[in-house]
Amino acid sequence: MKLASLKGGRDGRLVVVSRDLAWYADAAHIAPTLQAAIDDWAVMRPRLESLAEELEHEAIPRERFHEHDAAAPLPRAYQWADGSAYVNHVELVRRARGAELPDSFWTDPLMYQGGSDGFLGPRDPIPLGDPAWGCDMEAEIVVVTDDVPQGVTPEQALDHIILIGLTNDISLRNLIPGELGKGFGFVQSKPASALSPVFVTPDELGTAWRGGKLHRTLKVDYNDRPFGRAEAGEEMTFDMGMLVAHLAKTRSPGAGTIIGSGTVSNRDPDNSPGRPVAEGGKGYSCIAEQRMVETIASGSPATEFMAYGDTVRIWMDGDDGKPIFGTIEQEVVPLQTSAMGGA
Amino acid sequence: MKLASLKGGRDGRLVVVSRDLAWYADAAHIAPTLQAAIDDWAVMRPRLESLAEELEHEAIPRERFHEHDAAAPLPRAYQWADGSAYVNHVELVRRARGAELPDSFWTDPLMYQGGSDGFLGPRDPIPLGDPAWGCDMEAEIVVVTDDVPQGVTPEQALDHIILIGLTNDISLRNLIPGELGKGFGFVQSKPASALSPVFVTPDELGTAWRGGKLHRTLKVDYNDRPFGRAEAGEEMTFDMGMLVAHLAKTRSPGAGTIIGSGTVSNRDPDNSPGRPVAEGGKGYSCIAEQRMVETIASGSPATEFMAYGDTVRIWMDGDDGKPIFGTIEQEVVPLQTSAMGGA
Repeated sequence: MKLASLKGGRDGRLVVVSRDLAWYADAAHIAPTLQAAIDDWAVMRPRLESLAEELEHEAIPRERFHEHDAAAPLPRAYQWADGSAYVNHVELVRRARGAELPDSFWTDPLMYQGGSDGFLGPRDPIPLGDPAWGCDMEAEIVVVTDDVPQGVTPEQALDHIILIGLTNDISLRNLIPGELGKGFGFVQSKPASALSPVFVTPDELGTAWRGGKLHRTLKVDYNDRPFGRAEAGEEMTFDMGMLVAHLAKTRSPGAGTIIGSGTVSNRDPDNSPGRPVAEGGKGYSCIAEQRMVETIASGSPATEFMAYGDTVRIWMDGDDGKPIFGTIEQEVVPLQTSAMGGA
Repeated sequence: MKLASLKGGRDGRLVVVSRDLAWYADAAHIAPTLQAAIDDWAVMRPRLESLAEELEHEAIPRERFHEHDAAAPLPRAYQWADGSAYVNHVELVRRARGAELPDSFWTDPLMYQGGSDGFLGPRDPIPLGDPAWGCDMEAEIVVVTDDVPQGVTPEQALDHIILIGLTNDISLRNLIPGELGKGFGFVQSKPASALSPVFVTPDELGTAWRGGKLHRTLKVDYNDRPFGRAEAGEEMTFDMGMLVAHLAKTRSPGAGTIIGSGTVSNRDPDNSPGRPVAEGGKGYSCIAEQRMVETIASGSPATEFMAYGDTVRIWMDGDDGKPIFGTIEQEVVPLQTSAMGGA
């Protein structure tokens, strides 16, 4: 089952979307919003699945689904916690800012609490107050949980994952060193993230979803050129169950909690940091990695962070070669021309 | 106007509470939940104020208000960001964990993103998985905002503060050094916080609310003995407008964002860390401060962190000597006996 929220109001309007993302059926008579459905998931899931089944069989009224009409599936959520499961990325980014990688990072997941009060829609522009902040994309997998009891094991946690999607976890790289230096984590350096047009139930992913990892290629184009083709199921040190359990150690994450994988990242087969796609590598899911690899090769980064007008596209194809979650496609714009400014 | 949410469902049921906290009137016909009221505050506020006026004049049906029936005013919220406006506290806590205080901390607010998916009610027990985690209270002022545009000034930000209350920002002290050492801020070391029985509109505080500071004594009793009597309006390096503006630098905080002051803390008149209440000082709003002062005096801390059965009470009296926001009153209990465990 694939679910989306059409733009409208603070929480959008829940719709069920066909597997090929061509059609939708209104689900408001079942639950007005995705959060409302998640709040009563055991009851709502079978009802929504019946609707999805009817939609696939063209047995009910349907409308064309346009991704640009979609808000984030959860336009606002009660929790967003982002892990760093691909430790290769963590190591590169830390090297890029001159910080060491402690050995414990390979056994104890890194995670930060992010702002969840407003997620950008998949085609919303990225409103940037100042290009000097160093705007970067971060392509990631996200999962949504139901109510998670405090103290669950990683194995138990997998059963609490009810939806899966993608995010562009936008980062302001030049604000990060100062903010992390203060010791309290990210606040200003992590503005609103964008979510994929649809979230899907785990069964929709078939055998590609196993062991809390999504074994498919996460595709990133930057300014219309292939930039990242990383394998999301490989070199993921911590699976999603481990990340959920990490968050639940001392509290009970509420229904609708969104948890991120961190930037998907692969090394090259010879264990060196990955090469760009243009050089036959798997590329990068954020600019910071490319800059680090450039620094290793030539002493300084050549690729700039995102400027006004730069675009990023993030998606993941299924076996049919079509995007499973739809496509996140965003352009960086000045703050005042964005719809977010006076929201 | 004073607002509360009676327990029931995930978001409680909105009620207007009389100034003396003795009575309430159901407000569900205006807005079912406090978040719903905040989402349309310009329309809802005058309606709720009319109801509050009628309640004060006993012109409508009313029921006795019992604080133990109250959930947190926002049982879950879309954002919780906690500042550290009382730099005296920051300095003491950092000294207690052997960390230096950078000079910039006096000009650049410290703030972390907290979990907002579940706030404890004012009389809910504190569910503690392991006493070795070092459970501590932190008594703070909180404000709730409407929609805040990105880039507001501290002065403009004051106009976006629509409600004021108290929190017990529970901290797991022994998990903090390891977690902050990882560089991504608090996750496991900051479990669910508790909120005061009622939140109030700024006008309810009269001249005690000025310049983004609440000029009253924040009272903390620990195991039924006076523990903290700090002046919340004094030695507050960053007012609430500055904290809201700090959060809004790179994003647009959504309606219902809760922002905390950080632990309220005063020095002694001679500029030394404050003395305990029993020794004529203003005491502390968290145990960590007392432990630090003990360490300075005798080389090691004497006061333990909270164990099962320990209780904390947090409130603030008005001119009439009665609690403005009601009283947070909590006991630490083992996880399995708490209602939170299987939530």
